[in-house]
Amino acid sequence: RPKVFRTPDDVDRPAIVKLPEAARRVERGFFVAKDREDLLKKAKRLADKGVIRLADLSEAAIEELVLGAHFNINYFYSPIYGRLELHSIDRRIQTDLDGFYRLPARDQLELDAEPRYIEVGHEPATIRESLLERAFEIGYRFVEAAKRLEPPGVIGPFTLQVMATPELDLVVFDVAPRIGGGTNAYMGVGGQYSKLYWGRPISMGRRIAIEIRRAAEEGRLGDVTT
Amino acid sequence: RPKVFRTPDDVDRPAIVKLPEAARRVERGFFVAKDREDLLKKAKRLADKGVIRLADLSEAAIEELVLGAHFNINYFYSPIYGRLELHSIDRRIQTDLDGFYRLPARDQLELDAEPRYIEVGHEPATIRESLLERAFEIGYRFVEAAKRLEPPGVIGPFTLQVMATPELDLVVFDVAPRIGGGTNAYMGVGGQYSKLYWGRPISMGRRIAIEIRRAAEEGRLGDVTT
Amino acid sequence: RPKVFRTPDDVDRPAIVKLPEAARRVERGFFVAKDREDLLKKAKRLADKGVIRLADLSEAAIEELVLGAHFNINYFYSPIYGRLELHSIDRRIQTDLDGFYRLPARDQLELDAEPRYIEVGHEPATIRESLLERAFEIGYRFVEAAKRLEPPGVIGPFTLQVMATPELDLVVFDVAPRIGGGTNAYMGVGGQYSKLYWGRPISMGRRIAIEIRRAAEEGRLGDVTT
Repeated sequence: RPKVFRTPDDVDRPAIVKLPEAARRVERGFFVAKDREDLLKKAKRLADKGVIRLADLSEAAIEELVLGAHFNINYFYSPIYGRLELHSIDRRIQTDLDGFYRLPARDQLELDAEPRYIEVGHEPATIRESLLERAFEIGYRFVEAAKRLEPPGVIGPFTLQVMATPELDLVVFDVAPRIGGGTNAYMGVGGQYSKLYWGRPISMGRRIAIEIRRAAEEGRLGDVTT
Repeated sequence: RPKVFRTPDDVDRPAIVKLPEAARRVERGFFVAKDREDLLKKAKRLADKGVIRLADLSEAAIEELVLGAHFNINYFYSPIYGRLELHSIDRRIQTDLDGFYRLPARDQLELDAEPRYIEVGHEPATIRESLLERAFEIGYRFVEAAKRLEPPGVIGPFTLQVMATPELDLVVFDVAPRIGGGTNAYMGVGGQYSKLYWGRPISMGRRIAIEIRRAAEEGRLGDVTT
Repeated sequence: RPKVFRTPDDVDRPAIVKLPEAARRVERGFFVAKDREDLLKKAKRLADKGVIRLADLSEAAIEELVLGAHFNINYFYSPIYGRLELHSIDRRIQTDLDGFYRLPARDQLELDAEPRYIEVGHEPATIRESLLERAFEIGYRFVEAAKRLEPPGVIGPFTLQVMATPELDLVVFDVAPRIGGGTNAYMGVGGQYSKLYWGRPISMGRRIAIEIRRAAEEGRLGDVTT
């Protein structure tokens, strides 16, 4: 997980400031700062523009800025088979950021726009093989934490959104405790890693159906429903 | 569709200026401007450099700059089945823009190059589910307009190139009234949405074959040929 | 192949300077320069910072900077079938460059970071059809060169990393004389071009198995092993 700073004063590296939903009069919802001074300077500038109130800063989430390649890792936790399966990996497409960063830097600077980060699509992808072990490690850790914090924990599909860093670590920055929208990228075709369990790539929908049918056959429907 | 400005004086927002093919002594073929003043300033600079003639500006297409995530939506309009099918969605890869925007901004500014926008490949993708209804809406609107303007209208495959905006609208900026090159991204594997109609993903080539065979069986070949 | 400059003095266009592994105290491992003057200025700046030694420059590989869209072309050279097959095409994802170039240019400039270029994943892709002939041309040329330089030459899978330029040429900038990691992007699903040879998309693993089995059946195992 990225390092979280409790106050702007604690910031000792590049950071991302996420404003509370209620205070989001700026469409972007967050800004990037190089260090503490830069953070305070930018907050002041946005406050002067009337885009944020400095008071909101105390409610903002301030996190270390993790630079890396983003991936959505789609998992299926099976209480019936007693295992965590890797289903597929995809990458999000965000508007209008996607169109903005594809402009040459000079045009971006001249337009001086504030791109927004709204998920609007997905692309299929695979991750470097040496990172798969780490992918299982963070997946199992999520399953165990969910069991502890909210029994019986997560059942079936969930997605971890990660940054793969140059140190070849996976940093989880968001979680979807449900069917990730990115599994759509494998619609019809099926998640590529699911083939390793089922002999052919299957969709997340079919994986859920397999789990429920098997649970029903074994009289264990209680294990897959809450 | 993006807003079109008849003259540079009408420009009231960021715009893209597309020079007529004949005047294209600049390889890029177009430039981006922040507003009216910026447009005139850049046109003058390019004219001073001998890259364009100011006279060409009156023939240029000046369009609102729509920032968003680009998608090619591949459709199949079936006169035999009487419906519009969503076949697949892909994204274009353009050279040398693709390599240029992947350079850090500082390197881009130092190189000061003019990237070109030549389609050279495609990637598979899916669009956010809530946008599929809108995708059908613009598809049907194209089918109807084609019927009205050029009877009998479009038959079989066509592609709409769209920008998905942060307002979750789809803005059509180009049309390919034929098999889109991006359907290649599903070669062998088949278009993911086609599975919803045919039980398994099929290629656009196979979809055309199905239409023709069925038309022949029903003695309706005239409905699928012009 | 990109043009190679023997000394900094020979540089007459934008170039990329790749430092020898031993000298890589800078994590990035290389830098981009606009021209000869820029190259020398940057080398001096990095030397002053203690990041490189000017002496290392004489061992550095200095290559023309080729701007284009990158593709990994995955081939299979079959001694048994006596042909070169196009298996699939993918694109690499590099950390932390991937996250860096997706930041707006203004944020990139403010952070002033040095992104690294470490391969961490792959995406499926297809190349413009008119470039496929050229893809075979460079593939066969690699097969012939390997045969000449290191008999019996390459057997089975290899990958050429290319830049597709705006002039619609393919410039090879790297070679993997083995199963390319990007073939993973077709795990389960199978490489899209392989369908053209085998009636359905198959994985590179299966392609290798087909070759070995056929060689065994024909008593030609010596032709596919060294």
